Amino acid sequence: MTAKPRRKFWGWGHVGQGYTDADMLPFEAEFAEAFGTDGFSADPFPKAENITLAAPRLAIPDSLKDVCTHDHWERLVHTYGQSFHEQVRRMAGDFAGAPDVVAFPRNEQDVADLLDWCARNDAAAIPFGGGSSVVGGVHPDVGDRFKATVSIDMARMDQVLEVDPVSLAARIQAGVYGPHLEAQLKPHGLTMRYYPQSFEFSTLGGWLATRGGGHFATGWTHIDDQTESIRAVTPAGTHDSFRLPGSGAGPSQDRLFLGSEGSLGIITEAWMKLVKRPTFRNNAAVHFQSYWDGVQAVRAISQSGLNPANVRLLDHNECKYSGTGDGSTAVLILGFESADHPMDAWMARAMECALDHKGFLPDESKAAQDDPRAGAAGRWREAFIKGGYLREMLTARGIIKETFETSTTWDRFESFYTAVHDATREAVERETGKGAAVACRFTHVYPDGPAPYFTFIGQGQRGRMREQYDAVKNAASDAIIKHHGTITHHHAVGRDHMPWYEQQRSAVFAGALAGAKKAVDPAGIMNPGVLLPPQR
Amino acid sequence: MTAKPRRKFWGWGHVGQGYTDADMLPFEAEFAEAFGTDGFSADPFPKAENITLAAPRLAIPDSLKDVCTHDHWERLVHTYGQSFHEQVRRMAGDFAGAPDVVAFPRNEQDVADLLDWCARNDAAAIPFGGGSSVVGGVHPDVGDRFKATVSIDMARMDQVLEVDPVSLAARIQAGVYGPHLEAQLKPHGLTMRYYPQSFEFSTLGGWLATRGGGHFATGWTHIDDQTESIRAVTPAGTHDSFRLPGSGAGPSQDRLFLGSEGSLGIITEAWMKLVKRPTFRNNAAVHFQSYWDGVQAVRAISQSGLNPANVRLLDHNECKYSGTGDGSTAVLILGFESADHPMDAWMARAMECALDHKGFLPDESKAAQDDPRAGAAGRWREAFIKGGYLREMLTARGIIKETFETSTTWDRFESFYTAVHDATREAVERETGKGAAVACRFTHVYPDGPAPYFTFIGQGQRGRMREQYDAVKNAASDAIIKHHGTITHHHAVGRDHMPWYEQQRSAVFAGALAGAKKAVDPAGIMNPGVLLPPQR
Repeated sequence: MTAKPRRKFWGWGHVGQGYTDADMLPFEAEFAEAFGTDGFSADPFPKAENITLAAPRLAIPDSLKDVCTHDHWERLVHTYGQSFHEQVRRMAGDFAGAPDVVAFPRNEQDVADLLDWCARNDAAAIPFGGGSSVVGGVHPDVGDRFKATVSIDMARMDQVLEVDPVSLAARIQAGVYGPHLEAQLKPHGLTMRYYPQSFEFSTLGGWLATRGGGHFATGWTHIDDQTESIRAVTPAGTHDSFRLPGSGAGPSQDRLFLGSEGSLGIITEAWMKLVKRPTFRNNAAVHFQSYWDGVQAVRAISQSGLNPANVRLLDHNECKYSGTGDGSTAVLILGFESADHPMDAWMARAMECALDHKGFLPDESKAAQDDPRAGAAGRWREAFIKGGYLREMLTARGIIKETFETSTTWDRFESFYTAVHDATREAVERETGKGAAVACRFTHVYPDGPAPYFTFIGQGQRGRMREQYDAVKNAASDAIIKHHGTITHHHAVGRDHMPWYEQQRSAVFAGALAGAKKAVDPAGIMNPGVLLPPQR
Repeated sequence: MTAKPRRKFWGWGHVGQGYTDADMLPFEAEFAEAFGTDGFSADPFPKAENITLAAPRLAIPDSLKDVCTHDHWERLVHTYGQSFHEQVRRMAGDFAGAPDVVAFPRNEQDVADLLDWCARNDAAAIPFGGGSSVVGGVHPDVGDRFKATVSIDMARMDQVLEVDPVSLAARIQAGVYGPHLEAQLKPHGLTMRYYPQSFEFSTLGGWLATRGGGHFATGWTHIDDQTESIRAVTPAGTHDSFRLPGSGAGPSQDRLFLGSEGSLGIITEAWMKLVKRPTFRNNAAVHFQSYWDGVQAVRAISQSGLNPANVRLLDHNECKYSGTGDGSTAVLILGFESADHPMDAWMARAMECALDHKGFLPDESKAAQDDPRAGAAGRWREAFIKGGYLREMLTARGIIKETFETSTTWDRFESFYTAVHDATREAVERETGKGAAVACRFTHVYPDGPAPYFTFIGQGQRGRMREQYDAVKNAASDAIIKHHGTITHHHAVGRDHMPWYEQQRSAVFAGALAGAKKAVDPAGIMNPGVLLPPQR
């Protein structure tokens, strides 16, 4: 049905991709030491033939037989995203929430026909991009309010339709995956330079619908800032905005769909701002004995107006676990890039800011400058890219590893970091009875504050892992909201973040959003339970 | 009632401010030559005692007597904004749409009480900041659908409530005027560096509600980008968002209120991002024989990643009419600024881009570098700042002068500029039977396109000036929409731009916005007719 290679239904990527058991030996040794454990046994991954799904509750009409399927494997693939607790359920063979139908529309008319069919049949429509949601955004768990669920996978709408080399922009279909998008732009010498960790298995439409965060650590960070216009099919019709570099005509039309997470409609295409491929690069990794000195250095750089492409501060633990350093220092990975001019003056001033705050360069870092693939920066990059593949292997070994991200202002960052870090560590220790590893890096940085990204790791107990995970996630999320951080900086809200999102947003805004949804999705079929309590 | 000096009800600024008749002699000489006219006579400005207003249709209750007034002068001041046709009506003594009541709330409770009172009495609530709207945004013209109208002037809520020198941000009440805001920030060494042409007589709340465009010509251009959080009082309650440097939690809450133009509620305060006062500056004025060479230079600079604070290209006519040049060249005013580091490397590369496209520096421009108040750049700046005061003097002399602004992408800019320019010029010539002056500058520039700002001037006929103006404005607006520009880049929609805004936005978005409004303003009392057709 889909032209792409078969996706794993039990983890990240395609069948055959990822780590082997042998690859895991060094990780096992490291965790065994950390947790004081002899070793790890790995649960087997589930097999499709051993999983029984409920019979589909919705027949596929002839008019949609070219775009819909009841295929067993596809229903498994489209049951879950990539959150930790989804992974645990997968490993347990629990696919109770599988969609009744998986659809692969070829064009906007197919999308409109599908939504129309869903509305007529009281079926929930669950938009599906790359399925990389870590917040329950694509899980068709809508209870008994609907007669069926249809997962709408946009993978067939994957073309770059127009390239404007004068304005540096392209009209792109929403279902395109990261690598395929860049491959289509490359002949034009252009790139979106938008590289979330999920890049390999996430789509433009998903990035837009979740307000993803991209490559650039400062300046225009969210996909929002790269958007000229959006087309989206809603149950009430097709939305289209003028393609514009900037506008002040009423509240931004695009910004209503950016972050709408499929709750208003399905984004089908967008005009996106591009850049020329960078030819000038300066990179460095600056070490700090004290994390707080590193924080001050980043604040100075973020307020300097230099706008580095990368300004990622890793705390001591993050360095250790990612293999970027030995854990004795915090490391600031700093990068400038340009397609227009050398960035030496920029890097020189940013280095001054870093050195002013007690940063220092080990000899290796000096050697690694200008080569982002070498040294500490290179090791960090390698770990980042392969991160997606690790989850399924660790979960199989009973290891709880999860990330969450937020943002807050500089004035409260020290107390914020401490509170969130401590709440997370204490919860892992309490729930697992063993040591906890909590690490933090900055993914994006603004003049007024950073977007910290936390990782926690603990040894779970089989059969209790979801419960353990939930306790930690709840403790971390409560701490974030208590200290006025956002429940998500770029991972989105989905179903999992709803309790905290509802604390964060105002009741007035919730009412306005519900009013907007009622207008464009009167039957409430679009991704029910995401962003708003189910409307029926 | 208000602590501020008395505002003119017939023009810009305070009573006693502005041009004198003697100041106008050089302008008159210039226009007399342009239009082939002997000279101009000036109509007298209206006097308050000669204007009769209808008796207020709404009595002020005791509970609101400290915040409401029926004062004749205040009703006159709050009848109009600063659009051309409003100015013509003022001059004719036509104040038919005057509000029944003018309110000056002291705090959020007053605002909530006022909205509650309006809803109970079937009165329309018209938010009023500095009254600088040029699009009919503050004119209480709501026909017979309401029993009365109340203009709510936020001028008493004018305090900087908190300054965060670590994150570089401040919590600011919405009613503060530009100069008073900067005066409160100055002791902290901080500034918003937000300088619309209306700066003297516009407010933070107005900038936010209309998505105003600020000082910075590239990068973060709109006030949207400087906003951390917004508080707003709506008929359904008070909206408040977390103060955050960035977030991906659902569609942006702030962006719904940014550009809402008072149609959802009244913005009462906001946390705004600030910058340190710049200490390093580089400025230059580059001349071009051909306008199109200048356009290419600006495109190169806008796509270079250099992000100049100023990159304003004036076409030949704009140079002539503003006194920036003699009209034999187009002029690019280029500026970099920083509080952190010298900008020499930035300016050097931008100058290369300009000179690569046949830009050249007259000797004077070389001398004027580093001093923004000298030379061509200085003359431009002076004309810009005093622009607001000119309107009333020209209108009194029967001269039609208006500006409008838009944006479009680089690939279509040449045909766009030509079409809009020609449509405007032809309409002026047709309507006035005399020569037309049409000029254009860039106010803001994006990597994917510019925001051109047009000025047209023609000699009107007394008694027909509104009709003449409307014909020109309609021709220009039709050309903008036909060629896919936005009907407004930063002046807002108001009541005047509605016909074109409705062509520009999708029906789906219009439905969503109406749904949101219904939720937060169920009685439809907030600034009726702005952004949406009246909801009753």
